[in-house]
Amino acid sequence: MRFEYSNKVIKKVRLKILDKPGYLGSLTTRVGDLGGMFGEIKTIHLGKGYKIREMDIYSDTLDIFDEILDVIRTVEGVDLIGVKDVVEEYHKGGKINVVSSVDVETIDDLKIVYTPGVASICKQIAEKPELAAEYTTIPNNVAIVTNGTAILGLGDIGPVAGMPVMEGKALLFNQLAGINGYPVLIDSHDPEVIIETVKNIAPTFGAIKLEDIKAPECFEIENKLRKELDIPVLHDDQHGTAVVVLSALINIAKYTFLNLNEVTVGYIGLGAAGTGIYKLLKAFGVSTQYGADLDDNARNHFQSLGGIPEDLEGVMQKSRIVIATTGCAGLIKPEMVQQGQVILALSNPNPEIDPEDAVKAGAVFAADGKSVNNALAFPGLFKGALRAHASMINEAMMIAAAKTISGFSLEGDLVPNILDREVHDAVAVAVEQEAYKSGAATVKNSY
Amino acid sequence: MRFEYSNKVIKKVRLKILDKPGYLGSLTTRVGDLGGMFGEIKTIHLGKGYKIREMDIYSDTLDIFDEILDVIRTVEGVDLIGVKDVVEEYHKGGKINVVSSVDVETIDDLKIVYTPGVASICKQIAEKPELAAEYTTIPNNVAIVTNGTAILGLGDIGPVAGMPVMEGKALLFNQLAGINGYPVLIDSHDPEVIIETVKNIAPTFGAIKLEDIKAPECFEIENKLRKELDIPVLHDDQHGTAVVVLSALINIAKYTFLNLNEVTVGYIGLGAAGTGIYKLLKAFGVSTQYGADLDDNARNHFQSLGGIPEDLEGVMQKSRIVIATTGCAGLIKPEMVQQGQVILALSNPNPEIDPEDAVKAGAVFAADGKSVNNALAFPGLFKGALRAHASMINEAMMIAAAKTISGFSLEGDLVPNILDREVHDAVAVAVEQEAYKSGAATVKNSY
Repeated sequence: MRFEYSNKVIKKVRLKILDKPGYLGSLTTRVGDLGGMFGEIKTIHLGKGYKIREMDIYSDTLDIFDEILDVIRTVEGVDLIGVKDVVEEYHKGGKINVVSSVDVETIDDLKIVYTPGVASICKQIAEKPELAAEYTTIPNNVAIVTNGTAILGLGDIGPVAGMPVMEGKALLFNQLAGINGYPVLIDSHDPEVIIETVKNIAPTFGAIKLEDIKAPECFEIENKLRKELDIPVLHDDQHGTAVVVLSALINIAKYTFLNLNEVTVGYIGLGAAGTGIYKLLKAFGVSTQYGADLDDNARNHFQSLGGIPEDLEGVMQKSRIVIATTGCAGLIKPEMVQQGQVILALSNPNPEIDPEDAVKAGAVFAADGKSVNNALAFPGLFKGALRAHASMINEAMMIAAAKTISGFSLEGDLVPNILDREVHDAVAVAVEQEAYKSGAATVKNSY
Repeated sequence: MRFEYSNKVIKKVRLKILDKPGYLGSLTTRVGDLGGMFGEIKTIHLGKGYKIREMDIYSDTLDIFDEILDVIRTVEGVDLIGVKDVVEEYHKGGKINVVSSVDVETIDDLKIVYTPGVASICKQIAEKPELAAEYTTIPNNVAIVTNGTAILGLGDIGPVAGMPVMEGKALLFNQLAGINGYPVLIDSHDPEVIIETVKNIAPTFGAIKLEDIKAPECFEIENKLRKELDIPVLHDDQHGTAVVVLSALINIAKYTFLNLNEVTVGYIGLGAAGTGIYKLLKAFGVSTQYGADLDDNARNHFQSLGGIPEDLEGVMQKSRIVIATTGCAGLIKPEMVQQGQVILALSNPNPEIDPEDAVKAGAVFAADGKSVNNALAFPGLFKGALRAHASMINEAMMIAAAKTISGFSLEGDLVPNILDREVHDAVAVAVEQEAYKSGAATVKNSY
């Protein structure tokens, strides 16, 4: 089985096309022959006998896109008017705004939201601090903290270059959960600097989301902040990913008749993602888990958490389910695959083994990382925790989220549609309830 | 002369009023007799022979408001249906949101703004850091930093209780200048903690606005951050206030035929506001300035900046223009006022001397702090500096802002309407130009 595929170059072409049967067909066929795929197609202008259309074309590389353009130029009845980089267009000026949620049209309004009116609200909060939950955005604010050391597959590119990802997370917080996400860029490799800085600004937020911070620093930063702050602290690359992988595994287990409490699971790559998935699966009840990593410290850390270190071959031989998060394309050779194995080769943009190849080599099920998007988990996870005024997001809350997500998948799919608000709402409800049940929140603290 | 007055208690009453001539008049007269003033008046329902109206009523204290309610209950033809606290209503849930500025409706959109599309933008910024100005919100983000030690007239109530003020500033940034204001609450009295924290998160922002941090810590924090950061750092309580006071003084000089380069100016209170005004007036060309403060350190600091320390009586005797920022209501007695003096008694909500009393005692001009609102200055100041990608907001830029603001005042007024977007736009243009002229920005850095 193979899921949704995403090419890396996205361009918008504007074309004048003769408005007769066949022309659009021959255009799209020729583009498809070169591996190009179409996204949005809009009609911009309806002329006499022709249409002007804007089409988003996805391709693997810029070279391939140039070939596609060359071919378009030769298609009969089609004129190429212009080309725009869709991604650049969308990112111009950034992707989020801080806006007023109340109207200030008159000087009277101003007196209410600003001085002198605001003073009475400040005074009330000073006297009764819990009123901050009522009269400020704090309980709905999440800091999205990064030092830019593990941005997507790009590695340590620094926090400023990582800002488009942080804004993307804030955008999804807004659109999928109605949460205020505040990017916080910290230009330091020192865990202590990050810990101290986050602690110092923590009063502004209802929760902290650590993002794209590399291992092993991410573990220390998360652990210390969890201990020192009384609001949820979650490293998304560990736990957001883990929740989505667990929800996918719940579905895979159903399709393949596996019992997750009895299978062996093996990890190739013990960075943030691998370690995070390991911890959640252990909490879920998976008892025997192997792990391979080239780095001694990563293996030792895994062992200290209760995992069994192995080498790459050992993991492939002993594990019914293999989860690879190495960033190393093609690391798993077809001959390593065992009959009936489940293989999740999650590295983006290029997996450790192509899922089709894994299935050909005997895997009962294989998937890459394209559909395992932690945006399925984090909006609802945080929304539920914030609504409960929880002091943490614990494993019970993560498991509740994973179960809810898996329940929304259509038959045969690994995970549901990320943009389905219903999923995120349901996750939030499940997480909120579990927060009360597990003691991460007390009922009286809720709204 | 006396300017706009703001009462402190604002309530919305819902009334059923007979729809015949005279009833509304007798109601408003009776309320006015008790010192109540009306804000917004809306008709909610038009019944048969009656109207239901919602009226915002401003009064000085809750006791007075209760008296007003008692009187309303006795007015013929008027039924009191309900009372709401307008201020509380407006502040419920906080006043700002972080929202997406691009639409994400489809999975194709998601691929553009999030993975995989966003990676190409991150890569471009990593290779060419100046592209962050094009593809992120950073150059339009301002941190609104407070430790809550000098919130309005309320003093040290802590940063969380100060959050409604920070959200108010963010709201005004959004509405008046299109800038993203991010509240940053730091729960510390230690200047070093604040300096380090702001430095660590500075990559997120195009400028830093320090807010409601008490003297003398505010001076050290601002000075060090200015030295260590290459983006503008501005303590609003000093410089925002100073800009508005200078713009008012430019107008006052016009009305009173004073030459600001020749007058003596005296300060009563040498905290953040007094010191900030002193510094800007000195840069503007006022040569002789006296200052009184009960605190030795404040006087010494003033002297180290070139001011002449005096006691309260000395300042009142020697200064043509007196600027009081003590927070101490009624400190200036009418018998201290000199003939022809200009008196700005700026403490909110209660001035050092009532302007009417000052004028009666011989002042040629007097005003309180109600109209000297730094919201007139900071949106345009920051917008101009951000547009120029300036490394600082220097005194030349502040003076340009003050001159622009004063030019927009209507004849006879001290300052223009805060909600007039044209003023803020004009301030931004003046500040941007002055940034280039004064070397705070280089033209090639601009968009």
